[in-house]
Amino acid sequence: MAKLHEECGVFGVCVPDPRERDAAYTAYRALYALQHRGQESAGIAVRRGGQLLLRKAPGLVPEVFDKKTLSDLSGADAAIGHVRYTYDGAERDTFRAQPLLVRHAAGDMALCYNGKLVNARQLRMESETRGGIFQTGTDAEIISHIIVREHLRTNTTEDAILNAMHYMIGAYSLIVLDGKKLIAARDPNGYRPLCIGRVGGCWCAASESCAFEALGGEMVRDVEPGEVVVLTEDGPVSRNVNILARHALCSFELIYFARPDSVIDGVSVDLFRREAGRRLARRSSVEADIVVGVPDSGLSAAQGFAEASGIPYAMGLMKNRYIPRTFIQPTQGQREQSVRIKLNAMGSTVRGKRVILVDDSIVRGTTSARLVKLLRDSGAAEVHFKVSAPPFLNPCYFGTSLPDCRELAAHGRTEEEVCSLIGADSLQYLTVEDMRAAASGLRWGHCDACFTGDYAVPVPHGH
Amino acid sequence: MAKLHEECGVFGVCVPDPRERDAAYTAYRALYALQHRGQESAGIAVRRGGQLLLRKAPGLVPEVFDKKTLSDLSGADAAIGHVRYTYDGAERDTFRAQPLLVRHAAGDMALCYNGKLVNARQLRMESETRGGIFQTGTDAEIISHIIVREHLRTNTTEDAILNAMHYMIGAYSLIVLDGKKLIAARDPNGYRPLCIGRVGGCWCAASESCAFEALGGEMVRDVEPGEVVVLTEDGPVSRNVNILARHALCSFELIYFARPDSVIDGVSVDLFRREAGRRLARRSSVEADIVVGVPDSGLSAAQGFAEASGIPYAMGLMKNRYIPRTFIQPTQGQREQSVRIKLNAMGSTVRGKRVILVDDSIVRGTTSARLVKLLRDSGAAEVHFKVSAPPFLNPCYFGTSLPDCRELAAHGRTEEEVCSLIGADSLQYLTVEDMRAAASGLRWGHCDACFTGDYAVPVPHGH
Amino acid sequence: MAKLHEECGVFGVCVPDPRERDAAYTAYRALYALQHRGQESAGIAVRRGGQLLLRKAPGLVPEVFDKKTLSDLSGADAAIGHVRYTYDGAERDTFRAQPLLVRHAAGDMALCYNGKLVNARQLRMESETRGGIFQTGTDAEIISHIIVREHLRTNTTEDAILNAMHYMIGAYSLIVLDGKKLIAARDPNGYRPLCIGRVGGCWCAASESCAFEALGGEMVRDVEPGEVVVLTEDGPVSRNVNILARHALCSFELIYFARPDSVIDGVSVDLFRREAGRRLARRSSVEADIVVGVPDSGLSAAQGFAEASGIPYAMGLMKNRYIPRTFIQPTQGQREQSVRIKLNAMGSTVRGKRVILVDDSIVRGTTSARLVKLLRDSGAAEVHFKVSAPPFLNPCYFGTSLPDCRELAAHGRTEEEVCSLIGADSLQYLTVEDMRAAASGLRWGHCDACFTGDYAVPVPHGH
Amino acid sequence: MAKLHEECGVFGVCVPDPRERDAAYTAYRALYALQHRGQESAGIAVRRGGQLLLRKAPGLVPEVFDKKTLSDLSGADAAIGHVRYTYDGAERDTFRAQPLLVRHAAGDMALCYNGKLVNARQLRMESETRGGIFQTGTDAEIISHIIVREHLRTNTTEDAILNAMHYMIGAYSLIVLDGKKLIAARDPNGYRPLCIGRVGGCWCAASESCAFEALGGEMVRDVEPGEVVVLTEDGPVSRNVNILARHALCSFELIYFARPDSVIDGVSVDLFRREAGRRLARRSSVEADIVVGVPDSGLSAAQGFAEASGIPYAMGLMKNRYIPRTFIQPTQGQREQSVRIKLNAMGSTVRGKRVILVDDSIVRGTTSARLVKLLRDSGAAEVHFKVSAPPFLNPCYFGTSLPDCRELAAHGRTEEEVCSLIGADSLQYLTVEDMRAAASGLRWGHCDACFTGDYAVPVPHGH
Repeated sequence: MAKLHEECGVFGVCVPDPRERDAAYTAYRALYALQHRGQESAGIAVRRGGQLLLRKAPGLVPEVFDKKTLSDLSGADAAIGHVRYTYDGAERDTFRAQPLLVRHAAGDMALCYNGKLVNARQLRMESETRGGIFQTGTDAEIISHIIVREHLRTNTTEDAILNAMHYMIGAYSLIVLDGKKLIAARDPNGYRPLCIGRVGGCWCAASESCAFEALGGEMVRDVEPGEVVVLTEDGPVSRNVNILARHALCSFELIYFARPDSVIDGVSVDLFRREAGRRLARRSSVEADIVVGVPDSGLSAAQGFAEASGIPYAMGLMKNRYIPRTFIQPTQGQREQSVRIKLNAMGSTVRGKRVILVDDSIVRGTTSARLVKLLRDSGAAEVHFKVSAPPFLNPCYFGTSLPDCRELAAHGRTEEEVCSLIGADSLQYLTVEDMRAAASGLRWGHCDACFTGDYAVPVPHGH
Repeated sequence: MAKLHEECGVFGVCVPDPRERDAAYTAYRALYALQHRGQESAGIAVRRGGQLLLRKAPGLVPEVFDKKTLSDLSGADAAIGHVRYTYDGAERDTFRAQPLLVRHAAGDMALCYNGKLVNARQLRMESETRGGIFQTGTDAEIISHIIVREHLRTNTTEDAILNAMHYMIGAYSLIVLDGKKLIAARDPNGYRPLCIGRVGGCWCAASESCAFEALGGEMVRDVEPGEVVVLTEDGPVSRNVNILARHALCSFELIYFARPDSVIDGVSVDLFRREAGRRLARRSSVEADIVVGVPDSGLSAAQGFAEASGIPYAMGLMKNRYIPRTFIQPTQGQREQSVRIKLNAMGSTVRGKRVILVDDSIVRGTTSARLVKLLRDSGAAEVHFKVSAPPFLNPCYFGTSLPDCRELAAHGRTEEEVCSLIGADSLQYLTVEDMRAAASGLRWGHCDACFTGDYAVPVPHGH
Repeated sequence: MAKLHEECGVFGVCVPDPRERDAAYTAYRALYALQHRGQESAGIAVRRGGQLLLRKAPGLVPEVFDKKTLSDLSGADAAIGHVRYTYDGAERDTFRAQPLLVRHAAGDMALCYNGKLVNARQLRMESETRGGIFQTGTDAEIISHIIVREHLRTNTTEDAILNAMHYMIGAYSLIVLDGKKLIAARDPNGYRPLCIGRVGGCWCAASESCAFEALGGEMVRDVEPGEVVVLTEDGPVSRNVNILARHALCSFELIYFARPDSVIDGVSVDLFRREAGRRLARRSSVEADIVVGVPDSGLSAAQGFAEASGIPYAMGLMKNRYIPRTFIQPTQGQREQSVRIKLNAMGSTVRGKRVILVDDSIVRGTTSARLVKLLRDSGAAEVHFKVSAPPFLNPCYFGTSLPDCRELAAHGRTEEEVCSLIGADSLQYLTVEDMRAAASGLRWGHCDACFTGDYAVPVPHGH
Repeated sequence: MAKLHEECGVFGVCVPDPRERDAAYTAYRALYALQHRGQESAGIAVRRGGQLLLRKAPGLVPEVFDKKTLSDLSGADAAIGHVRYTYDGAERDTFRAQPLLVRHAAGDMALCYNGKLVNARQLRMESETRGGIFQTGTDAEIISHIIVREHLRTNTTEDAILNAMHYMIGAYSLIVLDGKKLIAARDPNGYRPLCIGRVGGCWCAASESCAFEALGGEMVRDVEPGEVVVLTEDGPVSRNVNILARHALCSFELIYFARPDSVIDGVSVDLFRREAGRRLARRSSVEADIVVGVPDSGLSAAQGFAEASGIPYAMGLMKNRYIPRTFIQPTQGQREQSVRIKLNAMGSTVRGKRVILVDDSIVRGTTSARLVKLLRDSGAAEVHFKVSAPPFLNPCYFGTSLPDCRELAAHGRTEEEVCSLIGADSLQYLTVEDMRAAASGLRWGHCDACFTGDYAVPVPHGH
């Protein structure tokens, strides 16, 4: 079930062959493959004849980019693109959409990123003290200020980025385009995914490897934590910021955010989820007739559970493919039924059955309770809730929009109390140990602070 | 894979309790659940204070209905709604959208239907000879003319419908609203599904039972072939046209059109598809490692195949949930890659595996060929194509938009030749016998003329 | 001041020369010139290769027709177009927009008209009795039914129109396009204007001659009351319905509706208005410093008043050119000021001056009162209101949207009472005699029933 | 005729009375009255509870502001608004629309301005050298940078503005809103108009006094060149920058830009234009029958010409009120006729007459030639062209979008050659002396460098 949202997906491409120069169209297709990472706004900045051009607006990729808009950007030899989630309503989203295109002393620069700075406020105030002006107050604008400031002391954008990284604390997977180069950078903790791929003769960078496959290309490797990669015609040139930091890929990328067909830091998202399901099964003592996954992010874990338990996998919940973002809210009395618009229980499958229901998380518990009720209303004899992640207990400062701790179902409740809250016959979470074991193939470390409170960087007080 | 399209989904509701009068909002939610039956236009006609009001336009349900439009229709005690597929471009779709609202000698009438008349042209010419005027030429307008003509000889709309049914040949599931009554009628052959449900205190009619469940209600029964049901506060009152006709539910409703969570004429769509998959498996002699269904309509059959064969079910293809209707076509060289935008093969699942690929049909063969290639590109060792329906060989005159026979892959080709066309290692169709056996639970008969040429009514020459 | 609205403007063109075939674009430009006759919807039907195509929608001409829509209609050898005023809200305007395109026994026919039938209801009921169906209930649909019915008895559309005219009572200037011909017809009373023009090698028909000049062509002659003109490559072919009827051009066409640069039934609208102003002046005994016309329709009369009185003409009111139809209504306290958004008094011109204010009419009196106040607020010493038409006293049944009699300022009030109502220092109406004298150049007679109650045809009781 | 465009109109209001707090709606109505100063984008920034909010977008005022958008801004105690002309296409206009809302070390600030800096490029580079980032490169962004930089050295925004004015060279009428104050500032030369008004209990600032009248209020006084006015509940508090500068109100504000009902620096725009017309008449030796003004900006001068010459004023050209910005361009052969869509000559008025045609300017000559032809085509016996301004000979650097000198009709041509170019029977320009005499009532001086080359500030070489 969609409950948490990360802020963004990023993409960059450079097209060496002058005959194939349509970097904007390549970015457009890649953003489709990354659309699951953000549906609030979309944007593409391109470089054509050394000039940077930008189009961005609130909306899904196909809403923002039509034929005319794409053709405005045609003929480009490089492009970066962005899809964004959060909308805080302060102003029309257009201004907060990315990429951000800025002109500074050394030329033009377009920038987009995925993540969240822990010290954004301090960095902004520091910049303001020197006369800095902020038009949106977004992290993207803050990062631009630091890079531009450092660029005054360096010759190249990549050097400026390397310098700037010493000041930025938190999660950031960054893609920058200037008049000459395309640069990808990942924070020293490696909180958010970022990888390099090859599509025909083009080098690309993207939040997830599924973007390369959607383009008919392939992933080459991850960007390392703390690495800055300059993509040129001759391939990636690597620099390293040399900041010692605990590696901390956000575990929710594996559990929920990423597409199952992506591979992150050496781990297949699908295989991770199936392994989580298998481990859940191994510790489960419940007898049941079928295993049902909550579409779409619970399906892989459900399959793993079925494999390991021998209980047959079944499509017991059906997702309506046409539910839009603009569903008109029902009046009070009808609200209860609104989950039915999105999901329907398959009576033919669940009637009279003892159901293992696998989902990736329980946040507030409201949606989970509705799912249980939906299955019971369709005749399920029993509903055993299996969560393919440990219970949420702590806040996230790195771009995962977890609600305030006090709203979390697991906050201040025993497992029995949560089970009773959602109305299930039994409840089982993945243990932290199993989660870590499933993630053990990660090339670098991961962050599971939302479960354990063990943060990889100091986090602010009174945040 | 979506390849064939039926024309419509219909819905009707009457709300006896004056305190709950929001028939338009009920219809709006039901149309969401029926959106898979038509994405080209949507419309709702309501009755408020004895007056009929209409809103319809091209677009998806959420595009056509916003808060303002719904509130224009609020307070209604009955409503009918429609989603429509075909767009033939002759005129702006608004005029061809349904419901159709007409005024005639006995009052106002709103009408929508799903199906296709075989003798539409003759009926229109007959009407024109008497001075009839056609503004759209749609079957809905033709049906209105006949009902209105018969109404001159009868006292009630239901009698007029019963009379009219003697002239209409073909497929039609019809819902009519007049100033007093809500009426549902199904053609004597029963080509298209139509059923009665109950949601709270309201009686409803819909193309598929999934609409009732989305509303939190339940299916009561199918409308019988040749039956006319008047829905009143006291429940359905049944009339029968008493035309002898071979029962002929379109088998493609079970195979592809309907949502798996619907039950049609006593048969669960999901169970039918699983049974088709099981029967495919029983006649299959291929050795393989995994069974992969083509999302979304091939998934049930793939599950059935897995059950019967013992080969594990796996999610080997991943559908991008954000692909819109407005994807900008790539330039020639890039067209090949466009299927990748929609579907992605899961390398982690298929690499090195012998894959059973289950889909519901092969139409022209182009899409099937791309699917096979996609799996091979992601490392599948073998791809064995299983079709959960027999080969298409004959035209459909009843609302299924099958292309011209000469474009069908199976037309004039042996099974080996089709296999070679799509590039699979082997190809297996469901046999007609197995299809019929899987459908044997249907309360009335079915039509499989597209496979067998055995039409339930005489079809036009030179059509 | 815009206060009354007629329903429509019509246009038709046939393009004999195959190299110049863009009838749709010609109609598009002509509709601009007729836009003052209707701002609610616009539509164009064309004939291309013998087929009729239609595009229509609510909105101004440029809102309805963009490049794509016009190019959908390109290459046509004939076109008819329509702009429409009234919006009665029963249904989305698209359905009530004209032209109406219908298919009947003898082929296709597109039709648009300007006017109002007095016996529309009877005609509709008559048609319904024969099984006729109405989708909008507009007069256009009723007229289509009668023409189609008569076409069953005749060979040509023009004969059908001539027959139909015997049944239609009221105002109608009609333009019809079928697969072969373009036909213009004017009711036997000649209530609404209709004229023939020539633009390059094309023959045209239009509500007003200004359309021909906007196209760079010229007016040839009026269509006579009761005349049916078939426009062919060889020029207009005339038929006459031979119904004896009192000629009755709506006098408000001259006073307010038509553009001043049009010539109707031999009378220049501008010259008529100037003559009305001159005649007002001759009967005026008021001493004043300046003559101010209310933009735009009061300007000609004001000029005439200035000429005859010797009092200087001055631009004392300024109209804001950018006021749209969507001005957001102010809250209660601010409503008073809303007229200021539209009009501004020129302080430099009116301060300390005794002002003759010339407007074409007083309907309810509210707007007139605001104008007087506006001038006084800007320092006018005196405001003498001159109306270039007699007082409204009677209802109009022919397409002029006069409000109910009881709402008319002059209804049940003496001239002094109206003067006091609007707060002017004095008030003078044009006398009926002067109005008739100014209109005496009309080739045929006119209707002034709204002033005199002298209707040219029997009007319905209890209407 | 619209030919030149200034960049903007600005407005600001503060609402002391808490019960009347709807500053956004006041700004909305004022922007309507200023819409003639810019139709490309519109924006309003408000202060509510000490916070600044912004809405802006490309389009006319009613396109940008609907009910929802206005209500987003409701309850504000101060607002500033802007309409903008120029569109240079580099990026979607939203980013270049004003007001600009920025956050800096001392808080938030919204800013809008009308004019053009001569030294914008130097100021931007200076700012970039210190690490400044530009997202649009507009003058508004540059001005913000300077004000914010100076704010680091001062306590209040008005002090920062006063400091900044020492660096800014060129034309700027500026309105700034911060968390506490509303500030209006006019450049020391006074190039663009700016005035203070009172509406009920509110103090306002606007580009033109017509905005106050549209709100039912009145002008109080002009902002003086070099003056900074802080608008508080207690009325305007004045500060002066004390920069010696030649006063230089753009003479084209009087000749063309401003609305005739505005009063600028003590001069009524309408009276100025009438005086220009009178002076033209006094030097004219042409015999003629009627004086015709080109709507809308030539009408006042034409009236003045008529007064002084005794030749009767007549409406010989009629402007179509419905011509939108989106008129679809005709094909080549039809382009000639496109002026006819906008303007129509009144045959009834001009036929056989010797016409004095008064317009405010000749830029390239193309439009003037079409006007002459239009009158001749409608039967004018002679057309004598009178221009109520001297010939354009020099570039403008202060926000008037005059084309390159080489495109100006008067550049390198004698008066006879221009007359021949536009096809008139005679041509007369206003002399520079007469223009200066007509403007002699201006409280401060004016700039007529476009006619004389006499610039009030040094202008850049190679600009």
